[in-house]
Amino acid sequence: MFKLITLLTKKQAMSDDEFAEYLLEVHAALAKTMPRLRRYVLNVVQRPPNREPEYHAVAELWFDDRESMKTAFSSPEGELTEKDTGEFASKTTSLFIEEHEII
Amino acid sequence: MFKLITLLTKKQAMSDDEFAEYLLEVHAALAKTMPRLRRYVLNVVQRPPNREPEYHAVAELWFDDRESMKTAFSSPEGELTEKDTGEFASKTTSLFIEEHEII
Repeated sequence: MFKLITLLTKKQAMSDDEFAEYLLEVHAALAKTMPRLRRYVLNVVQRPPNREPEYHAVAELWFDDRESMKTAFSSPEGELTEKDTGEFASKTTSLFIEEHEII
Repeated sequence: MFKLITLLTKKQAMSDDEFAEYLLEVHAALAKTMPRLRRYVLNVVQRPPNREPEYHAVAELWFDDRESMKTAFSSPEGELTEKDTGEFASKTTSLFIEEHEII
């Protein structure tokens, strides 16, 4: 399996709740239509007291292999998903992952 | 379930392979002994071409609740685990997570 992790920073104009709602309701509904996406988990960061976190969410996406990820993101659904990210995120950092399940 | 995500940056003196080997062989063996740890996944970042990534690994730890996480990290095993992190990581960023499985 090939795993992609994306660290997401919200747009400053959005509140934490607005960001989480858009991510979970609007964006997730779009992203999950991408072909060849095997598994999809969204991690919403709980705000630490008295400081602005650098990241507000961490997305995890699994594909059979790297080629399948490319197919997913170059599909019409993938292009819409990437475009939609600009609606709620001011910064994204994507990491290609080799996953190890320890427990 | 309560989920903790930790972003890890390697010590500069270590190569990518040395970092991954220490994390997966030495550190994981120690961390998985922590009481109340329910699930534990290590994500090793694959180096992008021609640049140094900001993070070299992403750890995911699941506990029944926040109290269990505190118990885990204040146990002797938890204290050894935290101390051992200094052997291979120059920076760590911890995020408390509300997890949503979309697919």
